[in-house]
Amino acid sequence: VQSDHLPHAVLVDCTSSLDIPAQYPDWLRRGIHLITPNKKANTGTLSFYRTLRSTARATNRHYLYETTVGAGLPIINTLRDLVQTGDEVLKIEGILSGTLSYLFNTFDGRIPFSEIVKDAQKKGYTEPDPRDDLSGMDVARKVVILAREMGLLLELDEVRTESLVPESLRDGSIDDFLSRLSEYDERIDLLFQAAQARDEVLRYVGSIDPAGECSVGLRSYPRTHAFAGTTGSDNVVAFRTRRYHTQSLIVQGPGAGPEVTAGGVFADLLRLASYLGGDG
Amino acid sequence: VQSDHLPHAVLVDCTSSLDIPAQYPDWLRRGIHLITPNKKANTGTLSFYRTLRSTARATNRHYLYETTVGAGLPIINTLRDLVQTGDEVLKIEGILSGTLSYLFNTFDGRIPFSEIVKDAQKKGYTEPDPRDDLSGMDVARKVVILAREMGLLLELDEVRTESLVPESLRDGSIDDFLSRLSEYDERIDLLFQAAQARDEVLRYVGSIDPAGECSVGLRSYPRTHAFAGTTGSDNVVAFRTRRYHTQSLIVQGPGAGPEVTAGGVFADLLRLASYLGGDG
Repeated sequence: VQSDHLPHAVLVDCTSSLDIPAQYPDWLRRGIHLITPNKKANTGTLSFYRTLRSTARATNRHYLYETTVGAGLPIINTLRDLVQTGDEVLKIEGILSGTLSYLFNTFDGRIPFSEIVKDAQKKGYTEPDPRDDLSGMDVARKVVILAREMGLLLELDEVRTESLVPESLRDGSIDDFLSRLSEYDERIDLLFQAAQARDEVLRYVGSIDPAGECSVGLRSYPRTHAFAGTTGSDNVVAFRTRRYHTQSLIVQGPGAGPEVTAGGVFADLLRLASYLGGDG
Repeated sequence: VQSDHLPHAVLVDCTSSLDIPAQYPDWLRRGIHLITPNKKANTGTLSFYRTLRSTARATNRHYLYETTVGAGLPIINTLRDLVQTGDEVLKIEGILSGTLSYLFNTFDGRIPFSEIVKDAQKKGYTEPDPRDDLSGMDVARKVVILAREMGLLLELDEVRTESLVPESLRDGSIDDFLSRLSEYDERIDLLFQAAQARDEVLRYVGSIDPAGECSVGLRSYPRTHAFAGTTGSDNVVAFRTRRYHTQSLIVQGPGAGPEVTAGGVFADLLRLASYLGGDG
């Protein structure tokens, strides 16, 4: 990369590659700023994460990744503002997967859960292999990104993650998975009925508790809770902090999709321009 | 002001004065950056507003005012990101007064509305003269700030504002107002009962419709609507845009009070430092 003659070079990594982030520290050292919606860099080993952050600091280059959580929603910058101005985060809880949000916003106990998954896969709302969503790994990665932003030393495998993929269906083809998923509908039905008996709804949530543990899984919430009001593929994040103690600071809206992600990446690019002396 | 030898001078106006903002353009010309939660500058005449913005641009100084709407909540910057990245705002609607939010979150038809106002005034939840809240002027100012941020040429007196202060009580002492407010409880009761009959709740809302009008007043919302879920003194703003069309982008949380406002002003100060080449 010949960046020596470019005063303000920026590289926008719009892949979800594991290999490209490995180059980030080297690119920073070459004077290149980085913007990315790719979650892999911030959810690799802590050792890599520290190298990345310290390299950005040492080279005075910017590394921006607002879109790694909630796409265009203002989540990372909101958290950073709170932390940098001395607020103390007591808990972050969020519906962080648009796909899982859609599945549980749609599931009302009438159509079997497995049918909703199949239909969503056909419509392209899930990854080609829905197990990539149902495993909870994507949510666990977002939990790691938010936790590290708060200064927690968290590795991805330390997030207690409740996979919705039955043990016996973890290997095998996508077709095999989809055709056998109905065997496990009863399990979700029972959870749904138990929640309904308490006048609650099921939501798949990631949670970060600095004093406790970081976890990802299926929870139930009263109908009056902010998480019960989600529709479609809404993401929602609730920040409970020392300042926002009685009532949380909440950000909600569609948190995935090419258009809102591109908008968020563009906003990071304009932010970078402001940092470099453009109009703020 | 002797700013000639200060490379990065910033003035933080934490007053609600009308007179101090009159000095902003002069201070910008002297090389001073400005940060303020004071709504008066952005809600004065359009002519003054244009002078202020063009002076900031011409002098390459920063003028930051995230806390003028929703205190520490990320509202102005979220709107700016959307607009600057080419999104089109279709409608902004919001509960923008912590005081009016509290009054209507608390009012459930049992205790008379006038009693809730009196109690809130005694606890310091309202301005010393509650008519300053009930007039809707504070909400109208926030509507003007958001509308101008979107590029709309709106004057404060063009916002159709429904005052909750009965005509006959607009003059006279605070005590007189408080003692006679109960005469008007029936009016609010009727609205409340009509809303309840539709399974809706009352909320005092500001709304900006670029294709229509900007208005402030009492509205009713279904119990499933995001605005029905507010508690305490929550603010909430829903951005409906071309990108966030089916589901709005929503920011919610306490939007007033010294601690969250100070946190927001501090965040603006750190943002300024980033623009001036500090760590981003």
